[in-house]
Amino acid sequence: MANDKKLVEAVTSMDVDFAQWYTDVVRKAELTEYTSVKGFMAIKPYGYAIWESIQGELDRRFKKTGVQNVYMPCMIPESLLQKEKDHVEGFAPEVAWVTHGGLDRLEERMCVRPTSETLFCDFYKKDVQSYRDLPKVYNQWCSVVRWEKTTRPFLRTREFLWQEGHTAHATAEQAEERTEQMLNLYADFAEDFLAIPVVRGQKTEKEKFAGAEATYTIEALMHDGKALQCGTSHNFGDGFAKAFGIQYLDKDNKLKYVHQTSWGMTTRLIGAIIMVHGDNDGLILPPKVAPIQVMVVPIRQTNPEVQEGMKKIEEVLSNFRVKVDDSDRSPGYKFADCEMRGIPLRVEIGPRDCENGQAVLVRRDTHEKITVSMDELEAKVAEMLETIQKDLFNRALERQREMTYDAHSFEEMKEIADNKPGFIRAMWCGCRECEDKLKEEPGVTSRCMPFAQEKIADTCVVCGKPAVKMVYWGKAY
Amino acid sequence: MANDKKLVEAVTSMDVDFAQWYTDVVRKAELTEYTSVKGFMAIKPYGYAIWESIQGELDRRFKKTGVQNVYMPCMIPESLLQKEKDHVEGFAPEVAWVTHGGLDRLEERMCVRPTSETLFCDFYKKDVQSYRDLPKVYNQWCSVVRWEKTTRPFLRTREFLWQEGHTAHATAEQAEERTEQMLNLYADFAEDFLAIPVVRGQKTEKEKFAGAEATYTIEALMHDGKALQCGTSHNFGDGFAKAFGIQYLDKDNKLKYVHQTSWGMTTRLIGAIIMVHGDNDGLILPPKVAPIQVMVVPIRQTNPEVQEGMKKIEEVLSNFRVKVDDSDRSPGYKFADCEMRGIPLRVEIGPRDCENGQAVLVRRDTHEKITVSMDELEAKVAEMLETIQKDLFNRALERQREMTYDAHSFEEMKEIADNKPGFIRAMWCGCRECEDKLKEEPGVTSRCMPFAQEKIADTCVVCGKPAVKMVYWGKAY
Repeated sequence: MANDKKLVEAVTSMDVDFAQWYTDVVRKAELTEYTSVKGFMAIKPYGYAIWESIQGELDRRFKKTGVQNVYMPCMIPESLLQKEKDHVEGFAPEVAWVTHGGLDRLEERMCVRPTSETLFCDFYKKDVQSYRDLPKVYNQWCSVVRWEKTTRPFLRTREFLWQEGHTAHATAEQAEERTEQMLNLYADFAEDFLAIPVVRGQKTEKEKFAGAEATYTIEALMHDGKALQCGTSHNFGDGFAKAFGIQYLDKDNKLKYVHQTSWGMTTRLIGAIIMVHGDNDGLILPPKVAPIQVMVVPIRQTNPEVQEGMKKIEEVLSNFRVKVDDSDRSPGYKFADCEMRGIPLRVEIGPRDCENGQAVLVRRDTHEKITVSMDELEAKVAEMLETIQKDLFNRALERQREMTYDAHSFEEMKEIADNKPGFIRAMWCGCRECEDKLKEEPGVTSRCMPFAQEKIADTCVVCGKPAVKMVYWGKAY
Repeated sequence: MANDKKLVEAVTSMDVDFAQWYTDVVRKAELTEYTSVKGFMAIKPYGYAIWESIQGELDRRFKKTGVQNVYMPCMIPESLLQKEKDHVEGFAPEVAWVTHGGLDRLEERMCVRPTSETLFCDFYKKDVQSYRDLPKVYNQWCSVVRWEKTTRPFLRTREFLWQEGHTAHATAEQAEERTEQMLNLYADFAEDFLAIPVVRGQKTEKEKFAGAEATYTIEALMHDGKALQCGTSHNFGDGFAKAFGIQYLDKDNKLKYVHQTSWGMTTRLIGAIIMVHGDNDGLILPPKVAPIQVMVVPIRQTNPEVQEGMKKIEEVLSNFRVKVDDSDRSPGYKFADCEMRGIPLRVEIGPRDCENGQAVLVRRDTHEKITVSMDELEAKVAEMLETIQKDLFNRALERQREMTYDAHSFEEMKEIADNKPGFIRAMWCGCRECEDKLKEEPGVTSRCMPFAQEKIADTCVVCGKPAVKMVYWGKAY
């Protein structure tokens, strides 16, 4: 293998330079390409196929809970953006402004949507009249634009793809229920489908979404010990409803404001997959999300028996997402290419395997290699894909546990933050000043107040006053 | 029925005011909603579900021919848009310009993509090096913006959803082959899936896409005799490749320009479905595209036997897209609602039906009503859905034939154009002047030069010079 791998240019080792390792994997696994549009990425076929896989599964899970897809305009008139005070303050500094349509200057400038709360409010104001019209549980798949200064593929780009769910409910309880339901759906999806363990919790006042009453989040730990926010769900209460005047006539014949939520996941998840599962040979994809689950690589592919064997394997494995690499590259090149692209299983078949009615299975994650008779091939592949999915999750969970530290004092917190990458759990008094102080030094932000609280001390790690919450702190993407 | 229908507000009769009929159907079938963003539409759940159905099937058909999905930026820097002369002339007058990002003025303004040829060229210039990289057969699903002055839902809006395929090939022959392949795919899709008969042909020089060597099109005839362009496929030759410098090293070690194509279909197709199949009771959806194929409407739904019957029917019909309307509306309201939404089949079940182990099936298109025993229900529904799909196509084809006229002289052409809505077939000398003259009076444009040519006269219907092509003329959306 060592020699063969030279055929595919190696990636920078993640221990040497994690950021460069990430960029190398993105480029060499052919996920994205830089474009002439500064800060924007082109998503290449293999990267987009991963997104389609994510999108398909999320959409199925959404629809099971009654979500309906819709499509709203891609632009927001300035006056509409300004209707909710906190919201416009949060987003106005980072939007792109359209000032001309065709040859004419617009009477009112419009921004390209950075998120669509205001558009859905505008819509619900027309569409919701009576309690019979509620709840509205809508979602859209689209791209949004935020004018970031520094960008990195998938993690931070001026445009990204996402889904944004926006709901309207009759009561505060129903809105809260939906907010939590979607956060849990996101967490289950991340853990079950992407094999990424997450911490579920609530954002602090400082970190919550512009205009929300409460923001819930799932946070994952990357290989380098930095946190990545993987999905958020917001409860708006009736704040937007009051700003936009969204009222319904209830059964008791009274006009009432609706209660709203929104929730989103983005192409950032692809960055999470790379940084949670990848290694120095490239990408590692969990079988459930992998566009190609099994790659068949023939050895001496011009041999007629090998040709026949290839075809037979493709047939036998037709219940999986299987592909045969019959290009004119060398087997060694193909092996390295499979590894770079993170294809979970590789099947090798050569003349001797054909003679013996067998094939060789190689796991991407462990490089484990076993020989299997053709009769057992299908069952063995099914079993191994399931094992890989589980193992990836367990390995990531184990790592997350190892990289999660408890701090009982400011000094201990500083010591951990400076020397041990990962999550730091510590008690907090709930005040903004202590949060700001930790941001300044040792440079960590609150990731979330986990739903699963533990009282690891009585007092705030910063000010020593009585603690109200245990918080996950960390450096984040 | 007549009385019940009043419960759902009736649509304007299409014979009285076709444009108003169209707008009424769009609104009352809940397909779109107007927004505060002038010229932009919000697509509501039922309208979007039709688009998802179209998208799913088209995407499957694309992938069978080797198409890969990708995603390019939503903005184009002005200098990039300007690289191909004809292209920028065609699009510059109708784009939206972004001049500010966040708080800063951009160094170079960018337009929101009206179409993405220039972005794909920019991408291919980097991504294509060798003959081994070809062909590239890429597609993206996205929205585009064109600053239209007058707008109508689905037919002409400032933003619409579409797919745009963009390919690069080693030779002119391969590019031509792909251009024709996709046009034929579109035609088959329109006829087989949407039940819309189309005329396949080539656009004239005047009507072709900005920057293309040749544009192929499928044209359909609406109920009012106006034509609607339903999909186009363009062969660019090496024009864009030369403007952008997209070259590859061929097997013979020479640098050569690639040959490119692009092809697209849009949410406009939903407009076509409405105007080809709809009637004065509302929408009529072909079963293959219908998000709900069968609606079960209970009569006296509180009756326990009816409740059981409803559930049983839903189970028996689980291979179809079936839904039960168990809302608290009256059966009459539900019937009218099913009709407005164009649901192909309605199943009615009441106490007496339960007693007799039967249900009543009602076709949306013909209002034909039959009683079927529960044992036969599944087979009968399958058969009827197939029949409806075929009948809708045949009815539309019949109408298209009846509304297609041959003109042998300018006077005859004028007489037909003024009095008989539809396609006019007439011979043409191939010169722009005659085309311009027909546009002025009697106000028809060339829809296409059909692939299936017939020589219906020797001379041009305008100038009397020798004819080169038989052309379909008409008034168009």
